[in-house]
Amino acid sequence: MPRLVMKFGGTSVADLDRIRNVARHVKREVDAGYDVAVVVSAMSGVTNQLVAWCRDAAVLHDAREYDAVVATGEEVTAGLLAIVLQGMGINARSWQGWQLPLLTDNAHASARIAGINGDELIRRFKEHNQVAVIAGFQGLHKDTNRITTLGRGGSDTSAVAVAAAIGAERCDIYTDVDGVYTTDPRVVPKARRLDKVAFEEMLEMASLGAKVMQVRSIELGMVHNVRIFVRSSFVKPEDIDPKQTPPGTLICDESEIMEQQVVTGIAFSKDEAQISIRAVQDKPGVAAAIFGPLSEGNINVDMIVQNVSGDGKTTDLTFTVPSADFDRAKATIEKAKGEIGYARIDGAQDVAKISAIGIGMRSHAGVAAEAFKALAEKNINIRAITTSEIKFSVLIDAAYTELAVRTLHSLYGLDKA
Amino acid sequence: MPRLVMKFGGTSVADLDRIRNVARHVKREVDAGYDVAVVVSAMSGVTNQLVAWCRDAAVLHDAREYDAVVATGEEVTAGLLAIVLQGMGINARSWQGWQLPLLTDNAHASARIAGINGDELIRRFKEHNQVAVIAGFQGLHKDTNRITTLGRGGSDTSAVAVAAAIGAERCDIYTDVDGVYTTDPRVVPKARRLDKVAFEEMLEMASLGAKVMQVRSIELGMVHNVRIFVRSSFVKPEDIDPKQTPPGTLICDESEIMEQQVVTGIAFSKDEAQISIRAVQDKPGVAAAIFGPLSEGNINVDMIVQNVSGDGKTTDLTFTVPSADFDRAKATIEKAKGEIGYARIDGAQDVAKISAIGIGMRSHAGVAAEAFKALAEKNINIRAITTSEIKFSVLIDAAYTELAVRTLHSLYGLDKA
Repeated sequence: MPRLVMKFGGTSVADLDRIRNVARHVKREVDAGYDVAVVVSAMSGVTNQLVAWCRDAAVLHDAREYDAVVATGEEVTAGLLAIVLQGMGINARSWQGWQLPLLTDNAHASARIAGINGDELIRRFKEHNQVAVIAGFQGLHKDTNRITTLGRGGSDTSAVAVAAAIGAERCDIYTDVDGVYTTDPRVVPKARRLDKVAFEEMLEMASLGAKVMQVRSIELGMVHNVRIFVRSSFVKPEDIDPKQTPPGTLICDESEIMEQQVVTGIAFSKDEAQISIRAVQDKPGVAAAIFGPLSEGNINVDMIVQNVSGDGKTTDLTFTVPSADFDRAKATIEKAKGEIGYARIDGAQDVAKISAIGIGMRSHAGVAAEAFKALAEKNINIRAITTSEIKFSVLIDAAYTELAVRTLHSLYGLDKA
Repeated sequence: MPRLVMKFGGTSVADLDRIRNVARHVKREVDAGYDVAVVVSAMSGVTNQLVAWCRDAAVLHDAREYDAVVATGEEVTAGLLAIVLQGMGINARSWQGWQLPLLTDNAHASARIAGINGDELIRRFKEHNQVAVIAGFQGLHKDTNRITTLGRGGSDTSAVAVAAAIGAERCDIYTDVDGVYTTDPRVVPKARRLDKVAFEEMLEMASLGAKVMQVRSIELGMVHNVRIFVRSSFVKPEDIDPKQTPPGTLICDESEIMEQQVVTGIAFSKDEAQISIRAVQDKPGVAAAIFGPLSEGNINVDMIVQNVSGDGKTTDLTFTVPSADFDRAKATIEKAKGEIGYARIDGAQDVAKISAIGIGMRSHAGVAAEAFKALAEKNINIRAITTSEIKFSVLIDAAYTELAVRTLHSLYGLDKA
């Protein structure tokens, strides 16, 4: 029988009524002929309580003990869902990370998956028609025999890893939105839900702030070619027509996407700040002198723009940081003025980054140029530009964010009919 | 270094402040030179919430899933206490049942301990001065690799098992009373705390309703000769003089008790009901015909008194059941009248069982006779009597419970000076 992974987040399992709703979704897929592995998060609020207790216990707490405490949230949900499924006549059992085992490295609180063997789950599918209910977000470090967790949102990654291990036809991510949109529908009412989006595009969108899924889960899906379907957990199972494709977005290999748009989506991120260093010495080691201290200060630098020097001696260098880190970043650069050597610093908070993403850009020239023209026509000043193979980003005044997003959304034909 | 097990129940770890108090108790023993293993229960209220969720999930829920869910409560406490201890500069780590592993049989929700290997804990004591913080109440069934729990109060049993495995000098049970008393101090203000009590005596007291410890933990202590010290968790660690024996009761082998009293304690249990079957056929198989159906109906029969038949044909048979089961027990016997054969049933609710317990009874004749006389002088009618090697019990009208307990308490010299 074909295999399916279904993943439900915290709001989808917030209480027993919602867990019963999840169980009916599972039953629907079992009835449709799937062998099912379900991956669940903690009931919403539970993880926050556990994290708060750890913080109360000690500000600087041992990540190994933190993991042992917070992993219990998912274990509770898994057991409860197994009980509910059994009550509906479905053979089900819960699995904790150490029971599978889902092996990880030793980076407690943000561990990376090292391996997972799906043989036992597959044997139980075949011999017992047993649904596997798996506690997400957690694994086991084999050498120490201790519980690890995968970081916030890690249940997505658990789900994709399980799907790869059991060779699932699809990994369904049930969430509080019904798919991935061309841009944020709250900003652009004409935003459309995408039927399909390529892994690479979704990676860019996720890292640019479309918070549908954890970035690592998409990387993992891309590496193992796990088809990920983002769909709503708020649809009642009874309202789903088994003969029709339900609403949602399939994240898949680009070869599965027939008619690729040039631009698939417009992402944006406010709360950026820009720092420009004027008349920097144009010599080897300057970039390291600037970004080394920022990295040591745990300041996350995003866009970096450096022009070719005009006079061969000095150049201007611009980069962005989260708005909250603006003052700290400026102070760091001022402190290192001796090593760097520059004339002055200009800065701006309240800037926004607007990005257009699309695999089609690879084969289409002049995509970004159209955007620059369209933005200019709206009198939106572009502060900086960066491009990559499948996206380009512009830095503008934050006040123009919505206007810019709407402009590009229309420009690339993304508005719904 | 000598080894010590410290066990803290749910009210002793109810919140972070109380967990910090526990950590200071642990530090006190570490400073005194002990290698320490701490066994903890779930924060009070947590287990009830988990149990309620399981019941909400399904009235008849899979005990294996129930165990997986409820075991998380102790895991949270163990992690939090380890964090707090580390914050106080003490090397500590948490252990879940499957990590030790504490192996049990397959009787989920009331599993019995099969074995526990203390070598790794001892190695860490020696090489790292590491305190072991162990989640109580839980174990692992090896064949299935699934979590088991030991039943309510199971953390006591976990603690005694760990103490046996690491060869601890003592197993300290911190609880909300400061020891074991000669009787309930709420009934007899002159009740005295016992300095020492023998395992056999404590077993009788525990099973008779002195709810200080789980009966199985005392059995385990007796088999492995683990000295158990019951003491208060409400005493502040700072108020304890390390040079003095703290208040509490040592449960130990009788050979450790120098001056054994004839009677050590008076136990009582209200809410009993008595059923007397008159003129039962005195023939083989009658007892089975009576108690078989009661056992099948899950009715817990306590005292059984059957007299030798006077006429060789019929006899009277009396037994007690919990008051709540009285009607059901009577109906069961009436239904089986055909097989049993008897004249009529007499019953009484509102009866109480008073027991005197003491190892010294073995070597002293006439101990019970003194009680019968003293009770008669107070005009307390004795409905039935049973005796064993180290205790005797009388059944009386419940209204006389307090008077009878006080009378026997004084009679055997148990009143405090």
